[in-house]
Amino acid sequence: MASRSIRLAVIPGDGIGPEVVAEGLKVLDAVAPAFDLTFEQTAYDLGAARWHRTGEALPDSVLEELRGQDVILLGAVGDPSVPSGVLERGLLLRTRFELDHYVNLRPVKLFPGVQTPLAGIKPEDIDMVVVREGTEGPYTGVGGVLRKGTPHEVATQESVNTAFGVERVVRYAFEVAAKRPRKRLTLVHKDNVLTFAGDLYQRVLKRVGAEYPQVTTDYCHVDAATMFFVNQPQRFDVVVTDNLFGDIITDIGAAIAGGIGLAASGNVNPDRTAPSMFEPVHGSAPDIAGQGKADPTATVLSVAMLLDHVGEAEAARRVERAVAEDLAERRGQGARSTAQIGDAIAKRVSG
Amino acid sequence: MASRSIRLAVIPGDGIGPEVVAEGLKVLDAVAPAFDLTFEQTAYDLGAARWHRTGEALPDSVLEELRGQDVILLGAVGDPSVPSGVLERGLLLRTRFELDHYVNLRPVKLFPGVQTPLAGIKPEDIDMVVVREGTEGPYTGVGGVLRKGTPHEVATQESVNTAFGVERVVRYAFEVAAKRPRKRLTLVHKDNVLTFAGDLYQRVLKRVGAEYPQVTTDYCHVDAATMFFVNQPQRFDVVVTDNLFGDIITDIGAAIAGGIGLAASGNVNPDRTAPSMFEPVHGSAPDIAGQGKADPTATVLSVAMLLDHVGEAEAARRVERAVAEDLAERRGQGARSTAQIGDAIAKRVSG
Ligand SMILES: CC(C)[C@H](C(=O)O)[C@@H](O)C(=O)O
Ligand SMILES: CC(C)[C@H](C(=O)O)[C@@H](O)C(=O)O
Repeated sequence: MASRSIRLAVIPGDGIGPEVVAEGLKVLDAVAPAFDLTFEQTAYDLGAARWHRTGEALPDSVLEELRGQDVILLGAVGDPSVPSGVLERGLLLRTRFELDHYVNLRPVKLFPGVQTPLAGIKPEDIDMVVVREGTEGPYTGVGGVLRKGTPHEVATQESVNTAFGVERVVRYAFEVAAKRPRKRLTLVHKDNVLTFAGDLYQRVLKRVGAEYPQVTTDYCHVDAATMFFVNQPQRFDVVVTDNLFGDIITDIGAAIAGGIGLAASGNVNPDRTAPSMFEPVHGSAPDIAGQGKADPTATVLSVAMLLDHVGEAEAARRVERAVAEDLAERRGQGARSTAQIGDAIAKRVSG
Repeated sequence: MASRSIRLAVIPGDGIGPEVVAEGLKVLDAVAPAFDLTFEQTAYDLGAARWHRTGEALPDSVLEELRGQDVILLGAVGDPSVPSGVLERGLLLRTRFELDHYVNLRPVKLFPGVQTPLAGIKPEDIDMVVVREGTEGPYTGVGGVLRKGTPHEVATQESVNTAFGVERVVRYAFEVAAKRPRKRLTLVHKDNVLTFAGDLYQRVLKRVGAEYPQVTTDYCHVDAATMFFVNQPQRFDVVVTDNLFGDIITDIGAAIAGGIGLAASGNVNPDRTAPSMFEPVHGSAPDIAGQGKADPTATVLSVAMLLDHVGEAEAARRVERAVAEDLAERRGQGARSTAQIGDAIAKRVSG
């Protein structure tokens, strides 16, 4: 059988990004042959260094090249030497918006052997998927500042929500929920305060939900949801929410599921009009960069999501299983380096 | 000595509101005589029932009466029979905005004897105060909906932030921090995405901070903050943040400090141009209303904050101590009713 070739763009980025991406690729390279896959990798030098060198976060020409790839793996973006927001908005969010990653998919799952900060909570208690909207809401960048630096300054940020944008992400969430055993979808918003946006989400949930009678829906204010994540995580199966609420609750999700070192994500364009992008939820963690201390597991799990996205479910399961086994055996072990963890997982997937 | 008379407006509200307020007043009545205080109470019938009867959430005339009071105690507002947002925006937020409650003060404190869902966390690990902005940000209600109900609907919500509004709440937070042993103030925002509003908060923090060299400041993205609340709560002393982020993180705060039944808050007008309002963080909990199951402790602790606000610090400390003793002894006890808890605390403050 001829091997299948997949064009993979790699954006290692800043801080610990390159370290964790190296391990993610190690695992990908280890699993690919067994499934007759070849990843044609192109590395893109984007992030703080390039911005300092050229003043550009994401040149148009690079964005166009990215469009020609099948899928993207990203490490992390951001550095204290760059003003806050420049790389986040200019590189990360720009990519998500331009490539229409309207689904930001974030599983929250406690693996056996992993320590959660919650008392008395077992792996079966934390197993959910957050479907976070990725292309509108409070992340649009719409807004501005008037009379900057004066006592009369006004700074605004606008959350823009469209029926088009809300419907497609809600529909995706129903599809995810319909395939899971519990078939439960919770809308998280703040409809008693953000009445216009919240009402739109509620109406769309109801309308689209009529097509999925097998899925049970409910609603939870974002403030209550964060509380339930901590004291009743069993409550959630699939969650759909806007960009900002999704950002917040998936970090709590990461915390309860054993930490940001394990949280994977996909920026997905379900219509496949442009490549999707997979990345760990964590940031560039400049304080530990270059020390081999970062846990590459989140990136490896993002690689599994990437494999799923390109239709290689079996390969994805193999990577996930390797991670699960590795995590189950970490218990009681001393600290391992970034590369040691990558090596251990790579060995399991190829072995 | 002639007794001091204080005009107290009482808004029991909906659901468990009246039950918990009754216990709050029981404790207030028990502590008042020892400090020669008289509370002239006026009860206001506001909430779902009134809205159904009259179509009004908060008549202008009632708002004017409230202005003439010294201080307000509120139970909870909201009922499933009323469309989401009607009472929240029309009664609760309207009161906060009209009476210029620009500080929403929310202590997060783990009392000895109280069970936290976090493993290995002790009372000394959770002791912070969140200073939440109360009169602007994403809570303004600015925004709207276009082409409602069509596939081309657009719904917007605008976060409006002013130098005036940000500076006064940040200054208040510095004052709070300066009086605490650790003298540490953390700004929580999302300045890498909400760049206009975040930048305004950052610049104000820096400018006002120059007047408080004894206070250490730092910054934390809201997503990271929620994670730290769960796995590193020791990190926080005083937190200042906007209305929406404050809403979210104080619910996690409540969760880690033993649950929403213990979380107190004050909607404070520090300039005293209008009465401040004290209320438990929890909502109306219609599912357990009328059953004597609600924990009135959050309301009792809100009464302690109210006493502090009217300058009766000693009386406030006595109520807090009574709550602390009650909580320390609850351990191992069976469930007590709302009134039993109120009685026990009232007995301690008068005894
Ligand atoms: C870096 C930042 C812009 C980003 C976000 O807010 O989406 C990050 O927090 C995430 O969750 O991927
Ligand atoms: C009821 C609601 C409007 C309110 C808020 O969001 O402020 C509540 O959640 C709170 O925290 O007091």
